[in-house]
Amino acid sequence: MFPEYDVIVVGAGHAGCEAAHAAAKMGAKVLLCTMNMNTIAQMSCNPAMGGVAKGQIVREIDALGGMSGIISDKSMIQFRMLNRSKGPAMWSPRSQNDRMRFAEEWRLALEQTPNVDFWQEMVSGLLVTDGRVRGVRTGIGLEIPGKTVVLTNGTFLNGVIHIGEKQFGGGRTGESAAKGITEQLVGLGFEAGRMKTGTPPRVDGRSLDYSKMEIQFGDENPEKFSYSDETQPLTEQRTCWITYTNKEVHETLESGFDRSPMFNGRIQGLGPRYCPSIEDKINRFAERERHQIFVEPEGWNTVEIYVNGFSTSLPEDVQYKALRKIPGFENAKMFRPGYAIEYDFFPPTQLKLSLETQLIQNLFFAGQINGTTGYEEAASQGLMAGINAARKVQEEEPVILKRSEAYIAVLIDDLINKGTEEPYRMFTSRAEFRLLLRQDNADLRLTQLGHQIGLADDRRLERMLDKKSDTAKLINDLRQKKLSPDLINEGLEDMDTATVKEKISVEKLLKRPQVGLKEIMDLDNDLKVYLSKYSKDVLEQAEIQIKYDSYIEKEQQMVDKLNNMENFRIPVHFDYLAIPALSAEGKQKLNKVRPETLGQASRISGVSPADLSILTVYLGR
Amino acid sequence: MFPEYDVIVVGAGHAGCEAAHAAAKMGAKVLLCTMNMNTIAQMSCNPAMGGVAKGQIVREIDALGGMSGIISDKSMIQFRMLNRSKGPAMWSPRSQNDRMRFAEEWRLALEQTPNVDFWQEMVSGLLVTDGRVRGVRTGIGLEIPGKTVVLTNGTFLNGVIHIGEKQFGGGRTGESAAKGITEQLVGLGFEAGRMKTGTPPRVDGRSLDYSKMEIQFGDENPEKFSYSDETQPLTEQRTCWITYTNKEVHETLESGFDRSPMFNGRIQGLGPRYCPSIEDKINRFAERERHQIFVEPEGWNTVEIYVNGFSTSLPEDVQYKALRKIPGFENAKMFRPGYAIEYDFFPPTQLKLSLETQLIQNLFFAGQINGTTGYEEAASQGLMAGINAARKVQEEEPVILKRSEAYIAVLIDDLINKGTEEPYRMFTSRAEFRLLLRQDNADLRLTQLGHQIGLADDRRLERMLDKKSDTAKLINDLRQKKLSPDLINEGLEDMDTATVKEKISVEKLLKRPQVGLKEIMDLDNDLKVYLSKYSKDVLEQAEIQIKYDSYIEKEQQMVDKLNNMENFRIPVHFDYLAIPALSAEGKQKLNKVRPETLGQASRISGVSPADLSILTVYLGR
Ligand SMILES: Cc1cc2nc3c(=O)[nH]c(=O)nc-3n(C[C@H](O)[C@H](O)[C@H](O)COP(=O)(O)OP(=O)(O)OC[C@H]3O[C@@H](n4cnc5c(N)ncnc54)[C@H](O)[C@@H]3O)c2cc1C
Ligand SMILES: Cc1cc2nc3c(=O)[nH]c(=O)nc-3n(C[C@H](O)[C@H](O)[C@H](O)COP(=O)(O)OP(=O)(O)OC[C@H]3O[C@@H](n4cnc5c(N)ncnc54)[C@H](O)[C@@H]3O)c2cc1C
Repeated sequence: MFPEYDVIVVGAGHAGCEAAHAAAKMGAKVLLCTMNMNTIAQMSCNPAMGGVAKGQIVREIDALGGMSGIISDKSMIQFRMLNRSKGPAMWSPRSQNDRMRFAEEWRLALEQTPNVDFWQEMVSGLLVTDGRVRGVRTGIGLEIPGKTVVLTNGTFLNGVIHIGEKQFGGGRTGESAAKGITEQLVGLGFEAGRMKTGTPPRVDGRSLDYSKMEIQFGDENPEKFSYSDETQPLTEQRTCWITYTNKEVHETLESGFDRSPMFNGRIQGLGPRYCPSIEDKINRFAERERHQIFVEPEGWNTVEIYVNGFSTSLPEDVQYKALRKIPGFENAKMFRPGYAIEYDFFPPTQLKLSLETQLIQNLFFAGQINGTTGYEEAASQGLMAGINAARKVQEEEPVILKRSEAYIAVLIDDLINKGTEEPYRMFTSRAEFRLLLRQDNADLRLTQLGHQIGLADDRRLERMLDKKSDTAKLINDLRQKKLSPDLINEGLEDMDTATVKEKISVEKLLKRPQVGLKEIMDLDNDLKVYLSKYSKDVLEQAEIQIKYDSYIEKEQQMVDKLNNMENFRIPVHFDYLAIPALSAEGKQKLNKVRPETLGQASRISGVSPADLSILTVYLGR
Repeated sequence: MFPEYDVIVVGAGHAGCEAAHAAAKMGAKVLLCTMNMNTIAQMSCNPAMGGVAKGQIVREIDALGGMSGIISDKSMIQFRMLNRSKGPAMWSPRSQNDRMRFAEEWRLALEQTPNVDFWQEMVSGLLVTDGRVRGVRTGIGLEIPGKTVVLTNGTFLNGVIHIGEKQFGGGRTGESAAKGITEQLVGLGFEAGRMKTGTPPRVDGRSLDYSKMEIQFGDENPEKFSYSDETQPLTEQRTCWITYTNKEVHETLESGFDRSPMFNGRIQGLGPRYCPSIEDKINRFAERERHQIFVEPEGWNTVEIYVNGFSTSLPEDVQYKALRKIPGFENAKMFRPGYAIEYDFFPPTQLKLSLETQLIQNLFFAGQINGTTGYEEAASQGLMAGINAARKVQEEEPVILKRSEAYIAVLIDDLINKGTEEPYRMFTSRAEFRLLLRQDNADLRLTQLGHQIGLADDRRLERMLDKKSDTAKLINDLRQKKLSPDLINEGLEDMDTATVKEKISVEKLLKRPQVGLKEIMDLDNDLKVYLSKYSKDVLEQAEIQIKYDSYIEKEQQMVDKLNNMENFRIPVHFDYLAIPALSAEGKQKLNKVRPETLGQASRISGVSPADLSILTVYLGR
């Protein structure tokens, strides 16, 4: 009944959708098999994309030719560039999205992708022979042959939902858990673990009093995620609101702690430390008198409201009572309580950098199943797994990004080398080369590669190349273009920066912290006219490159140095146990992870600098 | 945590949505409690509304102030008035709908309805004391107090899905079955039964060859369902296609009959005779060489296709092989197989005409739970149950429509008096007074009532009253307006109808079968100008009333006669068993159904005309 597929993707969450799209775009015959076609690309938790470090990931996905950026753009109801007041390494795009629109846009996009077939059913197991995956087995017992399989089961594997002292099976509220896969994989030798995450109650926007909250507008000139011209920035936006918990709220919540599944030991899985539940926050930061609550609409028209910051698995009556003590929530009506969910994950140290498993050939894992949390983290892994599954079928080398190239690489490299004990979330601090990995240059970093592997289309490549050459030309011009003291000194004084005695190039001026292109333009009308030829993107790019030139160069030098070691490959069957000088822990970790390069070895936790020198010597460098 | 609600509606299918909306509009405080807020108003089966008799029901719901008409209008992708070539009693509006849009529009409409609260959870039982319902109990053990409860569980009660020899629990594919309610109700003395229904496989539109099919366009001048001006007819439509099964298809299907759950006895519930599975059709009409298949798009943009006419629960490989032998389906790809579902229902003879149960006060049943099938049947019951639950709380008499007033009344009256052994579906033949119950006059029949009970708004009433008085004026004018032979005789000849010697009124001319208002208009420009003042609705209404005047009057006389008996009330505690002259069966049935009026008694199957005369005598008439 089914042809043999090149790639079978199990699950249509953020990871699965990107995987299916990427592999199909690259020419693979893809089956996307998911439990319910009505819940394709459901946002399980907050209706938002991007944010600090996560926004950068969305831009990278987009630069490579993935869809998360375009889908986010098409479904957004508000856009903000976070951290604008800090350096450009910190600028982070974030959108509030219409939950229903987001899912619909993804589904329609996948439907419009040639090579993606759909099958609506639960996958209950894998077909495996001779250490290689051959397809999947479904709930009604169908066997679907596939050359590669990408598992993206999210929070569904043996999912258990907790609300207070109640618990019941489920992969998300109202949806069934997936059974069978964990058990089979453990039987095949995989190690599985248990994690948890949580979500806040949903409330009825009609029951809130917004006059008691702070209003939060979107950006005045909103941008967007995608570098392509397929989408446009919003011309109209919805607002959000901010309110705060208080002592009363905290006391009410505390009154339920004895019935909390987190505190009475019923939940064993570890939760995301950086996305804690409200009870966690109160518990860990007992000194804080209030916590921020973001009141976010779920879409253009719906009255459903997402209570960001109030994730909880306390008993529903406690949730309710506490909620109503938040300013503006005095008459709040709940649509459903918050809850925590526990699910199986597979420690990602069992993967190769391509996201293929070490144990079973042609089997890939991506998303929450690898112990991560977040849509963006999931989507980016899905993208890479989809790319590498397609390339495996095409007998091409896997695509492995470098830590200096993309947050996506940092994510995957961290997962595989360090593993994770708690749901892994991306932060800018995890990246060594933050100044290289900016949201404004993801296209310059990655689109060429995306095009080369057949994912990003010609148009994307052209746009990137245009931006690159325009930027280079502009930088050169700004270096040549000199402004005379009489033209600018008055303005410079206004900007609180030193006046000049001789002509000075725009480039030089731009390196001053107080001075931006916009300010200089206002001093010289000729320049303004000249600059108006360039797009906003190019102007921004040139300014950043000029302003941060020396810092960027320094990072780049470090990268080059490291790359030398980084890329030095370790033979596949290298026998670590036979090197007595290695530390016991180093030996064990190296043997377990089996790094592909010295660079990878250097980042394994437990592998000391001493171990690394010894290894370098043994490898004859 | 919850206030006491006036009306708790369990389930947000077609019945539940109408019930919640109606009760809230009438001022009741309503809680709509459903398993999954993402599946509110899901169309479980075909993405279409209306059709023969069903279209009339949608118009009636709309006339009363319900929402199904407006939602259908807002989400339709094609409209056709079926049976235009027959008499106006048979004209039946039908729309093809965008499945996702339909659900979204319903959800947003409910969200915009003040007085409707939402709770997302499975209801697992009822709170009942002293023979009266007091609220519901949810899956996590919450008790929600309610003065009345409307159960609209659809196909979810102990739902079991069958595909070939496989079977598993579920309320719809990918959704859980509901447990607990049946068992509790049986414990309380209710009789429960088992029914089944089925749905076809869904296929990928990109894999079909439409050149081998007949194309089916929407109407050239599409109309719409709602009498209100909230919606507009489509200006653009999607097309459908028609193809046919053949001997090969049938043989392939037959090869799976030994594994069919319908034929090997695994399914016990009775299915809808008039909406049979393809295996049923082949089996029952073995002489027919082909069956029609309607190929219907599921929305504006999706590639998903609904294979109308191919409902089946044969093993998926058989479905697939047979499907591919249908012209145009040679390369069809399936998204998911068809399946049958068995579920619990409660024989509706246990209800009062208000849809309240006889056993438990303030408990109402509506929709598929009453043994019906179809969205329109469900929605109309939901509407009436919602109305009557609200009225019960307001201590008002229930609204009970007459068989001569609405198809909705025919439906409910049939259910309660005759019960049903198989899923009940509406047909025009079930109505005695078809000519009165037309799709064009549902507003004239029902809007006044809808307004009086606080459901239809003032604007609706005004529109109806305008239509009514305009129609009366127009009819009168057409009676006065005489056309001279020289003006019209040539035209009459062309129409193949007798010429006239003297002036003749437009009214008289219109009574001729060959002559319509449109044709007469073309003969007299003055008339044309005069008529252009009237809306299409009024012109059509006047024409129908004039043309069918004598038939309509005859039906009306019968209705009046019957109403005399119809409305004669039987005392609530009337002791049928004490009347020896009644037939044994009559006695038993009367005692079981406990009809409220003589009219109702007359329609109970098993109550003979003789029984009726005896009863009439005993009641002193
Ligand atoms: C309650 C809850 C709270 C969360 N809170 C946060 C938070 O606070 N912060 C944060 O960043 N992230 C949070 N998340 C996580 C976020 O939703 C995930 O990181 C993200 O959705 C993961 O994407 P994914 O593609 O890996 O999996 P998912 O989005 O979970 O998608 C999994 C998909 O696989 C399908 N599937 C699963 N098993 C099978 C099977 N056997 N056969 C067929 N299909 C299958 C499912 O139907 C689904 O479509 C939360 C998730 C949940 C459920
Ligand atoms: C497979 C299938 C095939 C069908 N085929 C046809 C056909 O060929 N022709 C035809 O005319 N009709 C068909 N139908 C029937 C049609 O779908 C129904 O007639 C119609 O949807 C009934 O509406 P309803 O409101 O009664 O129930 P449904 O539309 O089934 O809605 C029930 C609602 O109740 C909710 N619910 C159920 N139990 C609980 C609970 N305990 N707690 C909270 N929420 C609950 C569900 O989540 C759902 O929202 C088919 C249905 C199915 C499932």
